[in-house]
Amino acid sequence: MNFARKSLNINVGDVAQLTKRFGENEVRTFAELSGDFNPIHLNKEYAATTRFKKPIIHGILVSSMLSSAVATQLPGPGSIYIKQELNFLKPAYVGNEIRAEVKVESIKGQKVTLDTKCIAICHETGKETVVISGPAIVYHPDIDPTKNN
Amino acid sequence: MNFARKSLNINVGDVAQLTKRFGENEVRTFAELSGDFNPIHLNKEYAATTRFKKPIIHGILVSSMLSSAVATQLPGPGSIYIKQELNFLKPAYVGNEIRAEVKVESIKGQKVTLDTKCIAICHETGKETVVISGPAIVYHPDIDPTKNN
Repeated sequence: MNFARKSLNINVGDVAQLTKRFGENEVRTFAELSGDFNPIHLNKEYAATTRFKKPIIHGILVSSMLSSAVATQLPGPGSIYIKQELNFLKPAYVGNEIRAEVKVESIKGQKVTLDTKCIAICHETGKETVVISGPAIVYHPDIDPTKNN
Repeated sequence: MNFARKSLNINVGDVAQLTKRFGENEVRTFAELSGDFNPIHLNKEYAATTRFKKPIIHGILVSSMLSSAVATQLPGPGSIYIKQELNFLKPAYVGNEIRAEVKVESIKGQKVTLDTKCIAICHETGKETVVISGPAIVYHPDIDPTKNN
């Protein structure tokens, strides 16, 4: 395989988004992977006794969409996370579609500061809710540092 | 099932930890779940061309151990994440064991502030490296708010 590199074209204001639905299967797979079997994610009967009423997706699973948007799109393959702040604003319910949005706020050297958020979309009503937000800092070796200082 | 609740006994200074090894299978499962197929995680040949030299575990997968420690131990089942700051200090390599450590820094009402970190342990040498650190804020409905104000 050829891993030859070229300079990455990235600018303040660039945006990317990624959408995926998380159903019961995905939530159970993540519970097994992480060891987090909190019944709020997996047990409808338990969830009904909580303020959420229905099972919710693990916050860290929802936030993995941000990581994916960074790694696959902006800045893209080769990106290395330095920091991610996650503010869990609202629950995302099992079955919701999640849209991750990342936007370039600033670039310094080879480090990019992104505004990131996850939006949960109700499958039945189409209603959109921002469920996670927070800044991220990502390093990419192929950013030309002489362009952004 | 019986979901009757009792007041949660939690105090400043309480600690919990959780350990799990992430090998190629876990990293591939997470790539499929999140859609993050960044070759730095999956492709030895590509990883060899980077500053890390070997495939590294997705940062968000490593951080899922913190979520698990919170959800299963401290404060435990029923916990709801409000905030998690993740500083990715060093890479965790595929095959490393990860130990998540959480410690109660303060309690206010039903909200707990935790100091959280993930330590990667090299399978061959036993060397330990702090790979992620950052504060977290978690809500638990069974904390007696009259005890912590």
